[in-house]
This record gives sequence, C-alpha cells and structure tokens, in this order.
Amino acid sequence: MSGRPSHVKIVEVGPRDGLQNEKGVVTVETRVGLIDRLSAAGLPVIEAGSFVSPKWVPQMADTDKVLAGIRHRESAIYPVLVPNLKGLDAALAAGAKEVAIFAAASESFSQRNINATIKESFERFTPVCEKALAEGLRVRGYVSTVIGCPFEGDIAPSAVAAVAERLIEAGCYEVSLGDTIGVGTPAKVERMLAAVMAHVPAGKVAVHFHDTYGQALANILASLNMGVAVVDASVGGLGGCPYAPGATGNVATEDVVYMLDGMDIATGVDLGAVVEAAWWIGEQLGGRKPLSSVAVARRAACQSA
Amino acid sequence: MSGRPSHVKIVEVGPRDGLQNEKGVVTVETRVGLIDRLSAAGLPVIEAGSFVSPKWVPQMADTDKVLAGIRHRESAIYPVLVPNLKGLDAALAAGAKEVAIFAAASESFSQRNINATIKESFERFTPVCEKALAEGLRVRGYVSTVIGCPFEGDIAPSAVAAVAERLIEAGCYEVSLGDTIGVGTPAKVERMLAAVMAHVPAGKVAVHFHDTYGQALANILASLNMGVAVVDASVGGLGGCPYAPGATGNVATEDVVYMLDGMDIATGVDLGAVVEAAWWIGEQLGGRKPLSSVAVARRAACQSA
Repeated sequence: MSGRPSHVKIVEVGPRDGLQNEKGVVTVETRVGLIDRLSAAGLPVIEAGSFVSPKWVPQMADTDKVLAGIRHRESAIYPVLVPNLKGLDAALAAGAKEVAIFAAASESFSQRNINATIKESFERFTPVCEKALAEGLRVRGYVSTVIGCPFEGDIAPSAVAAVAERLIEAGCYEVSLGDTIGVGTPAKVERMLAAVMAHVPAGKVAVHFHDTYGQALANILASLNMGVAVVDASVGGLGGCPYAPGATGNVATEDVVYMLDGMDIATGVDLGAVVEAAWWIGEQLGGRKPLSSVAVARRAACQSA
Repeated sequence: MSGRPSHVKIVEVGPRDGLQNEKGVVTVETRVGLIDRLSAAGLPVIEAGSFVSPKWVPQMADTDKVLAGIRHRESAIYPVLVPNLKGLDAALAAGAKEVAIFAAASESFSQRNINATIKESFERFTPVCEKALAEGLRVRGYVSTVIGCPFEGDIAPSAVAAVAERLIEAGCYEVSLGDTIGVGTPAKVERMLAAVMAHVPAGKVAVHFHDTYGQALANILASLNMGVAVVDASVGGLGGCPYAPGATGNVATEDVVYMLDGMDIATGVDLGAVVEAAWWIGEQLGGRKPLSSVAVARRAACQSA
C-alpha cells in the first residue's frame, strides 16, 4: 500500500470522450456550460473537444467556438484531441495550450479505428508531436485497448508498453492507458501497468477505465496501489460503449472523487459541484439519468431526507 | 498482494437480503425458481429466506415452504436468517441446516433496527446460537453498519471488532461484515478489517458490501488484498437501500464473479448462468433491469453481435 499517492490529478474527459460517444449532438453553448461547471468544481484538466472531421465525429464540430466561449481559469488546462497535422493547426489557430494524440495497443483496433497499422500510427503522430512541442504546447498521449480488443481479445502487456514508450519518446509529458471496452480486472491491470512502468516512469502514467463491466473503481484502486496518480474520468459517466450499446461508458468522475475523498487522497475537486454538473448535463441530453452511483444516491438521499 | 486468496466462496444473499428490500412481494414459486437457478449456477451458499414475523417483513413469509420446495443440492447449503428463539424453532421445524444471526456495530442502528442496545443484542443472540449449535446447525453471524451508520455517521473499527469477536465467541463459524449503507471506501475498509482481524482469524471473516456509491468492487479488492476469501453478493444487485430510495443495493453477484474470473480466482460459479438468473428474476419483478453492469453489458453485447 506504500505506493498509494496522497494526491491524484483527475483528468475530466466528459466534454470530449464522453459527449462524442453520446447519441445526441449538444450545442456549443451546452458544451461551454458543462466545461465552465467542471472548472468551477475544481477539475484541473478538462478535455474540451477535438479537431477531427465533423463528418466522422459531428459531436465535436465547432470545438474552436467552444474554446472561445469557455471561461479560461488559471487553475485549469483545456486539452483538445488532434488526429493529425491539420487538426493540430486548427487547435493552434483556436489557441489551444495542450493537445492529445492517440494510438492503439491492438493492431486490429488501430486498423479499424484509424485505418493505419500501429507502426503507421507512430509515423502519423510523431510530426504532430514535434510541431506541437515546437509551438510551445504540451502533448498528452492516449493508448487505447490496453487490456482487451473487441476484435482480437486479450492484448499483451508488452504491446501496451511498446506504444506507451513510443509516445513518451515522441515528447508526451504523460500517457493515458485506456481500457476502451472496459474488460479489465485488477490482476490484468497490475500486469499491464508493471509492463509499462518498466519503460515509463510512474509519474508519467495515467489510467483511463471504462465501467462497462463495473470494474473501473477496482481497477483504479489497483492502479493507485502501484503508484499511479493521474486518473481520467467523465462527469455523469458520459460516453457509452459502441461495442455494447446501452452499457455503461467512462467511469464517472463523481464515483472516483467519492472513493478518493473517502481515502483521504486529495483531488481539489468539489464532489457536490460535480454531482450537480452530472445532473445538469443529463437534463441537456434529454433527461438522461447520470450513469453514476454517487450522483443517483446523493439525489435519492436528498429526496428522502 | 501476497494475501490474495486463490479461491473465494461467494455467499449468495439475493433470495433473502435482496428480495426483502425489493418493493414487490414475490411468490414462493418464484423464490424457489430463483434459488434453484442459483444453485445450478454453482453458488455454494444461498441464503434462502428468514424466519421473522411476516408483519415486519412480508417478503420473507412462507420461508418454510421455500425450503420445502427447493432442490437441495449436495453442493450447496441454504442458510436462513433467525432473529430469536422463535425464529430458530421455525427454522428447525423447516429442516434448515444453517442459520444466520445478526447484530449491529452502531448503537443507534441497533436500537432503531431491533429495538435493543448492542449489549442486549448479545443477550438475545447468545441463546439462539447455543440452541442452534446443540441441534447440530452451523451458525453464521452478521454485523451491520461496519463503516457508517445512517444515524450516527462513521463507526469506529474497534466497535466492529468487538461485535465480530462476540459473534465468533458465541459459536459462529464465520462473521460477515456488512457496509449496510454502502459508504465505505477502500482505506476505511482496510482499517476496519485490520481491527477485526486482530481478534478474528482471516479465515472466519466475510465481507458484505452494498454498492450504493459504486464502491463495492473496490472494497472487495481491498478485502481480497488483506486475505479475505468469503464475499456476500446478490444476483442482479437485488435489494435497495432504505436510506437512499432508488439507489443501488447489494453488490451484484455477476459483477463480483466477473472480477474474480478475470483475476484467476476460482469460485466454481458459472457467470453466464448467474447473468441469466439476474434477467429472469428481473422479469418476475415486473421487468426490472438488473442493477448490474455485467448483466446489462452481456445482454447488450449479444444484441449488437
């Protein structure tokens, strides 16, 4: 237990990874409203959108307008996802200070998701990284399918380590390891992290769990026990799973904060404010109830009191 | 991690702790059908009902008929809850081989729940235990509110240890530590277990988590890491929380089995059969969807395939 951190940085991915996997398309105004609520709640990193073709991801169109509309707090940073140099140029034009790039640990997933082998994806993101760094931006890297892949099943920890190391070598200050389809369990997560940490310092590792099978908090605990101190989460559990429609998506920010609060691990995040943001964005999405135990239990407790 | 067991015994509490906290009253036939599905799924311990006054818990009326109706498999045992000597006599008449008794770690909860101080509850369950043992039964003990109490907040680990020790002294072969309102987080669970294990051998400790705030699996992982090898769970997450109506109740058996399967910890339980039982009892409860990530994700994955 000695490895457990005393402070955890939560990276809020709801306005990007969350909303882009929701069926409805929300307005720029709503996206701005959500981000401003999240920064007011004390979240230090809020992924604000992505610069990908609106043909592929209509939910993320007009991310430039979102960046222009939000209140830029000193206490927060607002990264945006960029798939290529064109996306990076758009992010620069919109005044982004941080971008995120991505690759997959599964060969089949890489080919189906971005139509490139893993090796080709390195060749694609390396110049993006170089230019972003030259322009003074910070770059975060994502690795998807770090435990399992919908097309090829279990992923070898060594494959994850290789991709993570490559992202760090390219200049990413942090690499977020994503269990895209939520099939991880603690022992698998421990083996994957051990493989990655043999090549990447613990301080540069973030974890990103989907709660499809309810395992996310247990996997986060296993990660904390190994010294991981950066956790991705999505307010209200925004975001579904395209491989199991109707199932839970990203782990809910409020569930993570509840656990960390209860373990006296500091986050700087106001749990009540996150719960309010979760219900607020649910209303904007047509009255969708938050996919979060804490948000539901908190409201239920208030109503019965 | 060395303390993690290679085998875990799952104690299925859905037909008792689960159904008694559901709004609807299901028929004896349905209760029998549920228990038979659960024993067919390989669950080794299935709490079959309780012998309490039907005035207080109408859902558990006719537990004698349930015991008479189920298929008694050699591979399983079917404990019943008894609050007092009258309940024990009814359990004996019905042919029960194991009974469960209970006490609370919170003084206020004890007084409101069973109208007795903790000390008075000892005086109440001791003769029940003595007679049950004399009749050749096995006795399991429950401690409720081991982390927090709806009336007095945080519960001292030492208070839990005192009650657990008393139950073991009275002759219980195992004591199940229940986070009745689901407010536990891993660090609190570790402190509570450390206090209990200073007085009760790890092999006699079971954990019983409610998933009200989504923390159950993380708490189970923390318990496994401390050597606990008995976990209570409820098929389909049956059972709500009277202190937060509408919130999640007991941790779902299928979510626990999914985690343990993924960690190569043997349970002898067939995950697919538990998922089917979860959907089946949901239909009997008026089409209620299982409160379980695994049951929902499994069905969603099948429908999209």
